[in-house]
Amino acid sequence: MVQELEEGLPLEKVKEFSLEELLGMAIKAEIGARKFYESLAERIEIPALKEKITWLAGEEGKHEALLRKMYGSMFPGKEVLYPEEHIGPELQPVARELHSAQDIIELIRWAMRAEEIAAQFYEEIEKIVETEDRKRLMRYLSDMEKGHYYTLRAEYELLLDWEMYSQMMHVGP
Amino acid sequence: MVQELEEGLPLEKVKEFSLEELLGMAIKAEIGARKFYESLAERIEIPALKEKITWLAGEEGKHEALLRKMYGSMFPGKEVLYPEEHIGPELQPVARELHSAQDIIELIRWAMRAEEIAAQFYEEIEKIVETEDRKRLMRYLSDMEKGHYYTLRAEYELLLDWEMYSQMMHVGP
Repeated sequence: MVQELEEGLPLEKVKEFSLEELLGMAIKAEIGARKFYESLAERIEIPALKEKITWLAGEEGKHEALLRKMYGSMFPGKEVLYPEEHIGPELQPVARELHSAQDIIELIRWAMRAEEIAAQFYEEIEKIVETEDRKRLMRYLSDMEKGHYYTLRAEYELLLDWEMYSQMMHVGP
Repeated sequence: MVQELEEGLPLEKVKEFSLEELLGMAIKAEIGARKFYESLAERIEIPALKEKITWLAGEEGKHEALLRKMYGSMFPGKEVLYPEEHIGPELQPVARELHSAQDIIELIRWAMRAEEIAAQFYEEIEKIVETEDRKRLMRYLSDMEKGHYYTLRAEYELLLDWEMYSQMMHVGP
């Protein structure tokens, strides 16, 4: 296992946690994802890719804020509870230097996996929350993570052909 | 039919055009999508949504540049050929004032439809181009449009509950 991705519990374990715990896990996961993308962006020198990863970091920051708002409305005045466990893979900050395209490709692949499971995780929480507005917010977050998944998959696909990537990514808008 | 979305030919018609024509259609569609998003962003007052739509406009601009680069490498020195017809829906600039959330919701729905078909259109072109690098570029574009589709679907989902949207979208990162 690589250091940037901590494998967590399988999705079925969602049932064993309270909604409060699940939201705490989600907030923790969004923070982890943001730090992962921020640290990855710092280590990437291709401007187009750096910009995209920085954008992803900002998106995860917004999700964290949305989740905190929902948490606050459901558990007013309570500190967020962060369980030790987490459902699905959780991204960790990138601490090492990246030496090759292969290093970046590998990290993008972990991020894809984490985004895919995050989308499913929000779908599971959607089943648990009771009001339509909370269900709606979970669908929003799930769709956003699906969007991230495809954005990353697009980059991944081009990165596999490094020569083409460097050539193509020098085009301006 | 609304003015912002022109229904084009069904996807099966791809076979009836040359690759040069299909690339011309794709470039025209990316230009149309960019102008659609730019004009939509100008008419939207919610900062978070305006920013997202502006981001989409920039993305389509990059796709246009990538396609022109590919066109240039396949048909060196040739002017881009823009057929009259187009496959699937094509987005047009928004010329009217938007008066309600419902107006925005409707436009986001057209955009979702256009992005979805665009993703399939690139998959069709992928089958036609012969070299691996060109197939790869088509997969890249197809995945990017899928990413846009889910990003839009997320916003659409929240917009349906306008009160919640305005409340949620005031959170900072």
